[in-house]
Amino acid sequence: MADRITELRERYDYYKSLNLSLNMARGKPGADQLALSDGIIDPALIEGFRSEDGTEIRNYGVLDGITECKRLYSEILQVKPENIIVFGNASLTVMYDYIAQCMIFGSGDKPWSQQGKIKFLCPVPGYDRHFSILEHFGIEMINIPTDSEGPDMDLVDEYIKDPSVKGLICVPMYANPTGITFSERVIERFASIKPAANDFRVIWDNAYCVHHLSDDCDKFYNIFEYAEKYGTQDHFIEVASTSKITYPGAGIAVMAASDKNIESVKKRMTVQTIGYDKINQLRHAAFLKNRDGVTAHMKKHAALIKPKFDAVIKALSDSFSDDGDFSWTEPKGGYFISLNVPEGCAKRTVELCKEAGVTLTGAGATFPYKNDPFDSNIRIAPTFPSLDELKLATEILCVCAEIAKLEKNN
Amino acid sequence: MADRITELRERYDYYKSLNLSLNMARGKPGADQLALSDGIIDPALIEGFRSEDGTEIRNYGVLDGITECKRLYSEILQVKPENIIVFGNASLTVMYDYIAQCMIFGSGDKPWSQQGKIKFLCPVPGYDRHFSILEHFGIEMINIPTDSEGPDMDLVDEYIKDPSVKGLICVPMYANPTGITFSERVIERFASIKPAANDFRVIWDNAYCVHHLSDDCDKFYNIFEYAEKYGTQDHFIEVASTSKITYPGAGIAVMAASDKNIESVKKRMTVQTIGYDKINQLRHAAFLKNRDGVTAHMKKHAALIKPKFDAVIKALSDSFSDDGDFSWTEPKGGYFISLNVPEGCAKRTVELCKEAGVTLTGAGATFPYKNDPFDSNIRIAPTFPSLDELKLATEILCVCAEIAKLEKNN
Repeated sequence: MADRITELRERYDYYKSLNLSLNMARGKPGADQLALSDGIIDPALIEGFRSEDGTEIRNYGVLDGITECKRLYSEILQVKPENIIVFGNASLTVMYDYIAQCMIFGSGDKPWSQQGKIKFLCPVPGYDRHFSILEHFGIEMINIPTDSEGPDMDLVDEYIKDPSVKGLICVPMYANPTGITFSERVIERFASIKPAANDFRVIWDNAYCVHHLSDDCDKFYNIFEYAEKYGTQDHFIEVASTSKITYPGAGIAVMAASDKNIESVKKRMTVQTIGYDKINQLRHAAFLKNRDGVTAHMKKHAALIKPKFDAVIKALSDSFSDDGDFSWTEPKGGYFISLNVPEGCAKRTVELCKEAGVTLTGAGATFPYKNDPFDSNIRIAPTFPSLDELKLATEILCVCAEIAKLEKNN
Repeated sequence: MADRITELRERYDYYKSLNLSLNMARGKPGADQLALSDGIIDPALIEGFRSEDGTEIRNYGVLDGITECKRLYSEILQVKPENIIVFGNASLTVMYDYIAQCMIFGSGDKPWSQQGKIKFLCPVPGYDRHFSILEHFGIEMINIPTDSEGPDMDLVDEYIKDPSVKGLICVPMYANPTGITFSERVIERFASIKPAANDFRVIWDNAYCVHHLSDDCDKFYNIFEYAEKYGTQDHFIEVASTSKITYPGAGIAVMAASDKNIESVKKRMTVQTIGYDKINQLRHAAFLKNRDGVTAHMKKHAALIKPKFDAVIKALSDSFSDDGDFSWTEPKGGYFISLNVPEGCAKRTVELCKEAGVTLTGAGATFPYKNDPFDSNIRIAPTFPSLDELKLATEILCVCAEIAKLEKNN
């Protein structure tokens, strides 16, 4: 073992000598992916400045989105157009504003801010920006372990007996960071949920619902179809966006929700805005056209990023397939690979990587309060670097992770 | 007088027989005005997809706006670029979100929602959507009369001795609906304000700060320049937007504020979004260029809408210049003319207009709770109809107003 660590340290010092600057921290599309959508700025897409029902898109009006945009997302999320609202650039804002609304005005009961300490369930590992929103509003977060099928629903059912548990936030398909998709069994458990709090809300962040890496992909389950069987549809607020379909910096975001929830959100929106950017909405509808158009477009993304996912998984396999202390996910879509290093080694691994010029998402970031109880989980975002950079960065990550393990066992 | 009302009713019946549908209700630009900005969709403006500091505008990033957009508004509002934040399409949302932030987190003291009944001062007549935001959050509104120089500042100083008075909301230049601009004396009074509540905020909605109707225009006063003399700059939150410069349906909005307030808003924004639409920001900066570019562009708007303002004012003068019961403003900019009909006659006038096919902003809308204590104020929005339509609509309005007066005196 002394030999091994000496060898690894020599390799590590060599990497350091390269003065690299590689980044696998954030789920950003690469430059080649952005270029796939450059047709969207073609003025021909918005010629005449009219949506299909004749609305002048340059002027005021249209609170909930132009007809063709609502239809596009109604096809993607498989709900009626009237259960869709189209917003501005970020689904993060849609979630933030919805939770702010619940804090100030409630979601069918007293305002959340007037109900004392309230809590949210957080399947882990999860998305750091979800946890930031909840922490910002002073909502206590409770970790819910997940496996390859989704969150531990027995534990969820146990916790929701407590009426101060007001919600759960999750990415049901190609989750951030594990890449897993909730199984039909888990979807059914969600749909049949019976929370003690009647103002309980599941924030169902379907950020990656069309983001398959190949034809061998996970199945999309429409939560509202399942929820209707149990009459639980008011408990679900679904969001999605085109951030990783067209441009993260200039996309559109949507919410899908029950009639009752759409009505309450619109009631707030009539005070908050006259309408979101309709020109960008029409650009999106005209460029993506319909569900088939989106599918075809996402295949182009997949062609660019599948080799990156493959490269990371190959490197992890080459290094650790014989070492049961390491495990990782092999997602069929989304933007992330989740790596579990031995307990107590994640922070050290990320630190070693950083010193060698490889930036990873901070260890712990995938847990509420940035606190990974096992200091084990590392999120890998493979899309932004070039394939060569990514291969080198993953090689360095593997060396760092093994050094961290050996240091710990010393 | 019997003759006069008979004559007016005959004319009224004639107008009704025309089955008109004319709208002077909302401050919407006309189609000719929208066309002035159609150069903004030219792909050449965003070629290369880089802001001037090299930022890739298609991807994630840039919380507070691209450099050239902050500079553009820093020139317009005469504050430093670091005191500007650029947002999405609507300054209404910027105001809503700021007040929501004060409700949940406060503005330097306890959250407003935890301070019992709180109040805002509302110069009247004012903007209905301002009042909607305050009503939505349950903030009590207090009318402050205005004259041609601005709000009654003695009354403001009296009210702000009450620490439950948390703010004031106003349009300081070419106000909605009066079109008046606060005089330097009033600006100085604002700047030297000494509210009992240290978390008092003036929402300074400079929606029309570059919207002159001709070279004979009102002077722009930079409230922050005045406030600095008194150290009161933290009390002011200024907003503006391009809604009536480029497109109401696809513009950008900005906030200008003190270092401390910018910091607290950014702290919220880091949780709420990764960034607003940077492509639209670059389009705006490249199309409008700088303050001179905006000035030149606004002259084109003025050329189209000045004749409309003139037509309304001429019709009002022709009908009522000898009748001291009627008065109206003659703004040098903005989007509205404010008409005062005899007390108790505004609702009836608007109702008569509606029956004759002329839609006006609801009587009372220019006051909190839609309650005009004198039932006297009518807001006229002359920009959206064509000049011919507008002339006819104003003619009808004059007839209806006079009928209402004569009915009342009967």
